[in-house]
Amino acid sequence: MEKIFNPDKATWSEILKRPTKDFAEVETTVSEIFAEIIKGGNKAVNKYTKVFDKADIGDILVSETEIKEASKLVDVKLKDAIKTAKANIEKFHESQVVVAKPVETTDGVVCWQETRAIEKVGLYIPGGSAPLFSSVLMLAIPAKIAGCEEIVLCTPPNKEGKIHPAILYSAELIGVTKIVKAGGIQAIGALTFGTESISKVDKIFGPGNQFVTTAKQVATKFGVSIDMPAGPSEMLVLADSTAKANFVASDLLSQAEHGGDSQVIFVTTDKNLISDVEKEVEKQISVLPRRDVAQQAIDNSKLIFVDTVESAIELSNEYAPEHLIIATKDFDKIAMKVKNAGSVFLGNYTPESAGDYASGTNHTLPTNGYTKSYSGVNLNAYCKTITFQKISKEGLQNLGSTIEIMAEAEGLQAHKNAVSIRLNN
Amino acid sequence: MEKIFNPDKATWSEILKRPTKDFAEVETTVSEIFAEIIKGGNKAVNKYTKVFDKADIGDILVSETEIKEASKLVDVKLKDAIKTAKANIEKFHESQVVVAKPVETTDGVVCWQETRAIEKVGLYIPGGSAPLFSSVLMLAIPAKIAGCEEIVLCTPPNKEGKIHPAILYSAELIGVTKIVKAGGIQAIGALTFGTESISKVDKIFGPGNQFVTTAKQVATKFGVSIDMPAGPSEMLVLADSTAKANFVASDLLSQAEHGGDSQVIFVTTDKNLISDVEKEVEKQISVLPRRDVAQQAIDNSKLIFVDTVESAIELSNEYAPEHLIIATKDFDKIAMKVKNAGSVFLGNYTPESAGDYASGTNHTLPTNGYTKSYSGVNLNAYCKTITFQKISKEGLQNLGSTIEIMAEAEGLQAHKNAVSIRLNN
Repeated sequence: MEKIFNPDKATWSEILKRPTKDFAEVETTVSEIFAEIIKGGNKAVNKYTKVFDKADIGDILVSETEIKEASKLVDVKLKDAIKTAKANIEKFHESQVVVAKPVETTDGVVCWQETRAIEKVGLYIPGGSAPLFSSVLMLAIPAKIAGCEEIVLCTPPNKEGKIHPAILYSAELIGVTKIVKAGGIQAIGALTFGTESISKVDKIFGPGNQFVTTAKQVATKFGVSIDMPAGPSEMLVLADSTAKANFVASDLLSQAEHGGDSQVIFVTTDKNLISDVEKEVEKQISVLPRRDVAQQAIDNSKLIFVDTVESAIELSNEYAPEHLIIATKDFDKIAMKVKNAGSVFLGNYTPESAGDYASGTNHTLPTNGYTKSYSGVNLNAYCKTITFQKISKEGLQNLGSTIEIMAEAEGLQAHKNAVSIRLNN
Repeated sequence: MEKIFNPDKATWSEILKRPTKDFAEVETTVSEIFAEIIKGGNKAVNKYTKVFDKADIGDILVSETEIKEASKLVDVKLKDAIKTAKANIEKFHESQVVVAKPVETTDGVVCWQETRAIEKVGLYIPGGSAPLFSSVLMLAIPAKIAGCEEIVLCTPPNKEGKIHPAILYSAELIGVTKIVKAGGIQAIGALTFGTESISKVDKIFGPGNQFVTTAKQVATKFGVSIDMPAGPSEMLVLADSTAKANFVASDLLSQAEHGGDSQVIFVTTDKNLISDVEKEVEKQISVLPRRDVAQQAIDNSKLIFVDTVESAIELSNEYAPEHLIIATKDFDKIAMKVKNAGSVFLGNYTPESAGDYASGTNHTLPTNGYTKSYSGVNLNAYCKTITFQKISKEGLQNLGSTIEIMAEAEGLQAHKNAVSIRLNN
C-alpha cells in the first residue's frame, strides 16, 4: 500500500490516475462476431459460447423446466434474503416515480414532461467465479417497475451449459421475460441485432469485462443505447479520527476482492489511521478465500493523509469514485460537498456491501471517473422523457409574434409560416 | 410525395425505414484530427478552422469587445423575442428541479437520491446558412439552471472569422463562460481534450452534421459523455378529419426546410386530407426562400392513409419520431398512447415551430429512432444523480444477516466481513 502524506494539489491528478486500456484490438473482434450474428443468429451465438465458455448449447433460451429445477436448488435462507433485498430495492426504486407537472409558460401555452418505459431492454449478468444474482435484482427490478414490455437477460453458462440456480430463481421471481444462455461479445450481439429466439432490444444494461464493455460501446453504433461505460470497480474511503480502523479495512477489502484491478483509495485527516488501517488490512486479508485477488488490488491501493476534511473531499471530487464512504464526525455536512460520486455511504455503520445487496440503492454505478457525468442505474434509466405541449388559439396569439420574429431571423420562413397561417385563419 | 393506402403491418418497417449512413471513413478523419489537437492544442484547432471554414483565427476565444459590439448589431425586436423565449424556457426547465425524497427501506436504513450539476459542459452550435441562436437558448439555459460551473460554447466562424451577433448576444445574455470560434471535428476535439484556452469538459451537447456526430461518438472513448447521437430532423403528423390541410402542410414544410435529408411523414384516417395536404404543400412551397431544400425532403416524404386512429398511433410508435403533431379530435386520449416520440404537439393550434423557439420545451431531441431509448435535452441532462444511504447501528442489526447470507452465496467473504465486523463490535 502506497502511503502519501500531504500531496501537493498539482500532483493530485497523477496520484489519482486510473490505468488506461486500449480497446482497439477488441473492437475488431467485436465487429467480426457481430457480423456473424447478423447473418447466423442463434447458431453464431452458440458457436462463440462453445469457443469462449466451452459449453455446447442447444436452445439458447433457458427452459421452464430448468427454471423450476433451479428453484428447488436454492436454499430457503437465501431465498428469504433475496426476497428481503427485493422488497427494499423495490421500495427505493418505486419512490423514484416522477409525476407530470404541467407548466403554463405563457397564457394558453401549457408544457409538461411524461416518462414512458423503454419497451425492450437487455440485461447482462457476468459469469465467472461468483454467481451474481444480486445484479439480477439490481437490473431487473427497476425494469419491472418502469413497465418495460420485454426484459431479456443474458448470462454465460458453465461448461455443462447450465446457469447458476440463484440467478434463475431471482430472474423468475422478478419476472424477466426471457433468459438467454450466452455471455461476452456474443450476448451483446444477440441483444443488439436480435436472433430467431429474441428480438433486438432498445437499451442494454449491466457490467462486464473489457470484451462486454467494448461490445456495448460498438452496439451504440447500431441504434442501441447503453446504461454506461463500465470499468473496474472502485472505492474511496474518507475518514477522520472518529472512524474505526477495522471497519475501514473491511470496507477496503470488500472492494479489493472484486478483482486485481479494483481501485482502493483511503484518504484521512488522522495520521494514526494510516498505519492502523494498514495493519488491519494485513490481518483481515490473511483469512480471505479470495486473498490473492484482494492482495493484488491492495498492492496498488493508496493511503493518503491530508490536513483538512475540506482537502479530503476536494480530492475525492477530483477522483470521482464509484463508491464513497464518509466516516467522519460531521458526515452530513461533508455529504453536501460531494460533487462527483456514484453512491455515498454515510457514517461508521454503513458498509458499502449494504448497497451492493440489500439496502435498496442500486449497485450498478459509473466507474473510471464517469461519475462526473453519468448517474448510476435507477428507475429513470429504464424510461425516456417525452415533452408535450398544448397551445390554445389565444396562446398562439400571445406567443405567435415571438416565434415569427425568431424564425425570420434564423432564415427559416416555413417555421414562421406555420404560425402566420394559423394566426391569419 | 409517396402516397400509401392501408399498408399491411408487415410492410411498416420497410415504409418507415430511415436512410442509413456508414461513418467508418469519417471515424478515421476524426481520429487523425483528435491526435493533432492532443499535441497541438489551439494551433491545431485553428489549422482545421482554416481548412474547413476558410477563416484565419488568432485567439480561439471570442473577446469581450466582440461580444459588446454584437449586442449593438441585434435588432431590438429580436432582442425582446429572445428574452420572451428565454423566460418561457427558464420557467419550463426550472419546473424540472427534483427534490430529494429519503426513503426508510428498513428501520434504520435510509436511502435517497440527490442531483448534482455536471461541472463542465460543452455546447455545440452548428454554423451554416442559418444562425441558430435558438439552439444557444436551448442548450445554455438548462446548463445555467442546473448550476454547471463551466459552460463552453463552440460554433464555427464565418470566412471573416466572425460569429453571428445574435449567437453572441444570446450566449452573453444567458451567461455562457467562454465562446470558442471553432466548429466541426476540431471543436469536439477541443472540448474533449482541452487546449491552452479551455479545459476538457465532462459532457458535450448539441446537434451537428455527420462529422460532428461521429466526432461526438468517438469522444465517448475518451471519458466524455454526450447528450445523444444526432441525425437528420424528422416529423410525423397524425391527423383525422378535424385537422386543417393548410396547417398540416405548413408544419410539414417547416420540417422539410431544415435540410434535404429531413424526414416528413403524414398519417391520416381521412382520405381527402391526403390530396388536400398535397395540394397545400405545392402551393405553400412555391414561395419559400428555401424551397429547393424543402422540395428535396418533400420528394422523399410519405402520405399514409390508415383506417383507424389506433393504427395511426401504433405506426407512429414504431417510427418513433423526433417531433409528433397530433391533430385529431380527441388528441388528449391519443397522447396517452404515445410510447416513442421526442416532443409531442397537441391540437390544431400547436405548431412544431412553437417548441423550436419559444413555448418553453427543449428543441434538442433524439432522432433516427433513438426516441425509443433516449430523452430529449432537459434539466436532468445537465445533472447526474448520486445515491446516498445512512444506516444506524440498529439498521445494520436489522439488515445485516440478509447482506451476510447474500454475500456468502456470491462467494464474496470480504463483503460479508464488512457487516460481521460491525455487528460483532
